[in-house]
Amino acid sequence: MKNKVAIIGSGNWGTAIATVIQKAIANNKDFEKQINMWTFEEMVNNKKLTEIINENNENVKYLPGVNLSKDIVAVPDIEVAIKDSNVLVFVVPHQFIKRVCDKIKHLIRKDAIAVSLIKGIIVENNEIKLISDYIKDELGIECGVLMGANIANEIGEGCISEGTLACDNENTSKIMHQVFNSPEYVVTCVKDKNGVELCGTLKNIVSLGYGIGNGINLKTNTKVAILRKGLLEMVKFCKMFYDNVKLETFFESAGIADLFVSSLCGRNFKCGVNLGKNKSIKEIEESMEGQKLQGTLTVKEIYGFLKNKSKESEFPMFVMVYKICFEGEKCDSIVKVITNTEM
Amino acid sequence: MKNKVAIIGSGNWGTAIATVIQKAIANNKDFEKQINMWTFEEMVNNKKLTEIINENNENVKYLPGVNLSKDIVAVPDIEVAIKDSNVLVFVVPHQFIKRVCDKIKHLIRKDAIAVSLIKGIIVENNEIKLISDYIKDELGIECGVLMGANIANEIGEGCISEGTLACDNENTSKIMHQVFNSPEYVVTCVKDKNGVELCGTLKNIVSLGYGIGNGINLKTNTKVAILRKGLLEMVKFCKMFYDNVKLETFFESAGIADLFVSSLCGRNFKCGVNLGKNKSIKEIEESMEGQKLQGTLTVKEIYGFLKNKSKESEFPMFVMVYKICFEGEKCDSIVKVITNTEM
Repeated sequence: MKNKVAIIGSGNWGTAIATVIQKAIANNKDFEKQINMWTFEEMVNNKKLTEIINENNENVKYLPGVNLSKDIVAVPDIEVAIKDSNVLVFVVPHQFIKRVCDKIKHLIRKDAIAVSLIKGIIVENNEIKLISDYIKDELGIECGVLMGANIANEIGEGCISEGTLACDNENTSKIMHQVFNSPEYVVTCVKDKNGVELCGTLKNIVSLGYGIGNGINLKTNTKVAILRKGLLEMVKFCKMFYDNVKLETFFESAGIADLFVSSLCGRNFKCGVNLGKNKSIKEIEESMEGQKLQGTLTVKEIYGFLKNKSKESEFPMFVMVYKICFEGEKCDSIVKVITNTEM
Repeated sequence: MKNKVAIIGSGNWGTAIATVIQKAIANNKDFEKQINMWTFEEMVNNKKLTEIINENNENVKYLPGVNLSKDIVAVPDIEVAIKDSNVLVFVVPHQFIKRVCDKIKHLIRKDAIAVSLIKGIIVENNEIKLISDYIKDELGIECGVLMGANIANEIGEGCISEGTLACDNENTSKIMHQVFNSPEYVVTCVKDKNGVELCGTLKNIVSLGYGIGNGINLKTNTKVAILRKGLLEMVKFCKMFYDNVKLETFFESAGIADLFVSSLCGRNFKCGVNLGKNKSIKEIEESMEGQKLQGTLTVKEIYGFLKNKSKESEFPMFVMVYKICFEGEKCDSIVKVITNTEM
């Protein structure tokens, strides 16, 4: 029986990854050509978004200007979207993952495998749960992660990019590699799932900080010093709370490359820039046309977790970004983190 | 007896580091206030550069616009410059280091200690000699290294920056830390001298490659993938040819932070951009007003070394940059490195 892919989510990154998957499996006889993409229904210019996508082959709201293959089918009903699919690609904003899992847990195929592209964490009982683990536990299926140095719009335009795939199971890894890898999207498989997912999540805090530095017109030397301090805190966080994260993982696309790209032009970088220019989080989010600021949510969640563990003093950069975002701390204070931390 | 610092070199970086040292030792009673800066004499607007520096307190040729303390004294005669100094800071283009060492080896104090800020290598009998080791062996004194994510002009303007200091000897490290560290220039001491020096040297090849990608208008995802491949080759090079380089060193300012800064706006990045726009190395160097393109020299030397070891195939990125610089390879070929390497 052929593999059948369903994408759960159709935002900027969800739609971009649909183009990657479509190219990767187009000539693979082990896969059904059609890819269902669950699309949260909304009205765009008085027309349903799913209808626009399926009739015009373009996600005019979240990835405008990119022609989508007819093999990518927008489906408004999540139960219908995942029906018969054994490969589930999760790419919703992380605040929606619980609802999504609740909806599908009794419907998915027992032999399904999943991969999460979601950046964020879930904090339960003051402990962190990685989203791939949440999906795994909620749905009772295996779940890997795919992260990387990927600006979604560039992926939509078909530029050569890299991604990092991490699955616990060798066989899942092989299938998922086929789902994403192509000459245009080069996938490296690693075993360190926690490291990859934590990199993808924590880097958003750092690119926010780098963006703040940019917003207040810091010099490059200073901005990059902030970035480095943030990177050191990413490493420290992984070492402190996870036994098995490897330093090598930071050299993957999901590591410093993603941090670099996100800090050059990612959504959280732009948010930081606007914070530096004295805009509020609310104003910034309103200007983003429905896209979610997942970075700031991560900032809040990580801060709450660290506070609960009484570890704030060891993560001055993460804490500073939190205070700037949510406690009215002046953006200029960000430079203090350069003199105050060690790895 | 007080420590006395001499800076050997007064280019863009030499003059900038003079401002760092002056601030670091200004209120330290263990140091003489006067810092001799050996300046290769040249005529600027019919006047000697050393006279301009000492009369106007500005290096109008290599760091224009930055007011230098009167404690920084330009000295045209190298023997005079280093006389009585026990702290020698080497910051000349790496092609000049042999001549400089020859000139001073019989004149320096026996208790002198040195630090090299020079990026580059010396290849002798098909083996690499790091410049700090060359200085150490030629002069018979200890020599550490200082590298970091430092745009010289920004340092001259006094922006907050970081540096990485590596010395073999603990006592040397303590003195050198005093020579450079200040609230504006935050110095971290590490033990991995080879790692720090190799990072500072090899990163120039990578930022050239990144610049080439920029020059041919590659998308960010693709450019950063090139950068990452280059970083992997830096790691591989260190592991293959040096036993003791630590992965942690790449997380220092001299590691990925320097790579990041250099790729954002460094001299080699700009050279790469111009290569991408079909300018020749000769044209690019002519437009740089006397500054040397050390990156391209490093490219050539590392390539020669790898070829001699028959290891070219393991460093496709380094080799590609060489071929683009010196063998007429098309700049577009740089994207090939993304699909062809593994760490």
